[in-house]
Amino acid sequence: MTPDKIDQLITQLSFNEQGLVPAIAQETSTGAVLMMAWMNEDAVRATLTSGEVTYWSRSRSELWRKGATSGHTQKLKDFRIDCDGDTILLQVEQTGPACHTGERTCFFRAVSEGGLTAIPSEKQGPK
Amino acid sequence: MTPDKIDQLITQLSFNEQGLVPAIAQETSTGAVLMMAWMNEDAVRATLTSGEVTYWSRSRSELWRKGATSGHTQKLKDFRIDCDGDTILLQVEQTGPACHTGERTCFFRAVSEGGLTAIPSEKQGPK
Repeated sequence: MTPDKIDQLITQLSFNEQGLVPAIAQETSTGAVLMMAWMNEDAVRATLTSGEVTYWSRSRSELWRKGATSGHTQKLKDFRIDCDGDTILLQVEQTGPACHTGERTCFFRAVSEGGLTAIPSEKQGPK
Repeated sequence: MTPDKIDQLITQLSFNEQGLVPAIAQETSTGAVLMMAWMNEDAVRATLTSGEVTYWSRSRSELWRKGATSGHTQKLKDFRIDCDGDTILLQVEQTGPACHTGERTCFFRAVSEGGLTAIPSEKQGPK
């Protein structure tokens, strides 16, 4: 995607007062929602230019190419935005676990009658 | 779920400075990510008590039972939280379109070489 097309896209996004927009990463092969993190303009540009999903780390205040340290990268397959431009949905190919805990996805706890329970790895997808 | 179990769950959630946490709704039958909206404590309680997904409307500053006006309700099938408790993932049964535009999901625009393009309804899922 050319820089001017990326500039055009950025005008379609509604960044919050911190200059960030939430980005949901979904595994394209399984439909599993892997994680949600945040992007600023530079993260959007880096992701679309490199094809490697890059977020903004709010704790470290720096660009965070997913997997730069762990090797658990996310290859961008599709970049979607919602109706009002304030949320991004990424379709990705995930290498290794998405979660820093080693779980396949960050959403590995579900509410049940007894409280929060762990979800087995193979059930962390939509079904 | 009993009120005391819901209280316990709420202690596991990290609400932001506005008292809100993002909630992603995913269609359980197809894996399509339908939308992202926000929940406060009351919205979490209403959703878990009624089984009808209820958000907090930031524009109207009121509880928003999804579909209360449109009929396009979301029946809760599963309620998950992420590793650090600052994002909710809902598995839902969606009645009608999820998006107020009439599209099946709110994520109906994708980036392509030429800019943003519309995604056909049947391709608004993960694959």
